[in-house]
Amino acid sequence: MLTKNQIKYITQLKQKKYRDLNKIFIAEGFKVIKELLNSNFKLEQIYTTQQLKFDVSSAFITEISDVELKKISLLTTPNECLALFKMKDVNPPSKIGLKVALDDVRDPGNLGTIIRLCDWFGITDLICSEETVDVYNPKVVQATMGSLTRVNVFYTDLPKYLRKYELPILGTFMDGENIYKQQLPNEGIIVMGNEANGISKEIEHLVTQKIAIPRFGALQQTESLNVATATAIILSEFKRNE
Amino acid sequence: MLTKNQIKYITQLKQKKYRDLNKIFIAEGFKVIKELLNSNFKLEQIYTTQQLKFDVSSAFITEISDVELKKISLLTTPNECLALFKMKDVNPPSKIGLKVALDDVRDPGNLGTIIRLCDWFGITDLICSEETVDVYNPKVVQATMGSLTRVNVFYTDLPKYLRKYELPILGTFMDGENIYKQQLPNEGIIVMGNEANGISKEIEHLVTQKIAIPRFGALQQTESLNVATATAIILSEFKRNE
Repeated sequence: MLTKNQIKYITQLKQKKYRDLNKIFIAEGFKVIKELLNSNFKLEQIYTTQQLKFDVSSAFITEISDVELKKISLLTTPNECLALFKMKDVNPPSKIGLKVALDDVRDPGNLGTIIRLCDWFGITDLICSEETVDVYNPKVVQATMGSLTRVNVFYTDLPKYLRKYELPILGTFMDGENIYKQQLPNEGIIVMGNEANGISKEIEHLVTQKIAIPRFGALQQTESLNVATATAIILSEFKRNE
Repeated sequence: MLTKNQIKYITQLKQKKYRDLNKIFIAEGFKVIKELLNSNFKLEQIYTTQQLKFDVSSAFITEISDVELKKISLLTTPNECLALFKMKDVNPPSKIGLKVALDDVRDPGNLGTIIRLCDWFGITDLICSEETVDVYNPKVVQATMGSLTRVNVFYTDLPKYLRKYELPILGTFMDGENIYKQQLPNEGIIVMGNEANGISKEIEHLVTQKIAIPRFGALQQTESLNVATATAIILSEFKRNE
């Protein structure tokens, strides 16, 4: 059973303001919750309609009805369980290694997919501009499929961070050099830009190597690649010779 | 002004049954409509709240109110204009060249992104199993960003098609050979599988070369890549030496 106040508390967590205030975020679905339980995220409470097997003390589990789940879930088709976890402290990114930075990526699905890609390609630091969508947005948590537990997502004033950064800063631009013909560094930051506007002028000035994914085919009219698919291609190209 | 019947007709087109019956589909937003107008898709009607500059006879333009647009639009934030286009006849895929086939891809965003990727990498034939999401689903049309006009999307009995196919058939499997170390053919079909289940057993038997995108990093716990990002990496790998 959920009280009115509990329902209000959980639904408010859809907003960043309340997440930041309570330092709590929502995760939905068995798979994502299980991955978070196996990580260093601390569980607050699991709400479930089924006798699902979670390896936690029963004090952490609240059984609820389908109707109650529908009230607190963000999904059109709720997923049997929803959990609240405590946000964790983020470590400042390491000074070495290959990293990805996002300059104002706004779509939760894109951020989630990029976190999953970082995890796949062994990139442990993802640096986000302050305008990038919140990593604890429930749609992002959903799209990461648990990769959130293995990638350190760090929000900061990106231009300021890059100005102090000493390794190569790479950015994708229409007029960049063909990525397939480039000598790519083993360490550095790959900056990916906003869905509509690409990389901002301020950050463009800080980029030390402009790269481009070439277009193929007779017509070459495709305007652009989605930022998540472009990230996939670029990370693959950096890692393929490792 | 829209009549009740017009509103009913347009909203019904959200369902495949009515799209197939009328051979008409919905496109939303200035950019997508403009790309479709510049292609061999035939316009039926544009409904717009603004005096947007479309290079078509005024007989094809109906001015509507914001309230009316909200009634016929599928988007949470409607995009100033919505258009109806006639479906076009699809050519059977060519026998030569590199192609992509989808074995039961269900998510409209994934199909749209894959069409955009085919366009970018100069793949003109995309072959879809009959269970793959409909290319004229409005969310697919939206996600293609106009690439739909340049990629030939052909629905067929995929196992039957592949049984008669004479060039290499490649598929991604967890136990496939590292794609970065493979000699990849210039011609053939790359089969991408369903979001949850991958490539079906029936099609697995028809695959002549099993490939895999290797995972990196210390933990290697990422379960899988999203089908659209995997397609991006694979197409990039096929095309990078062209």
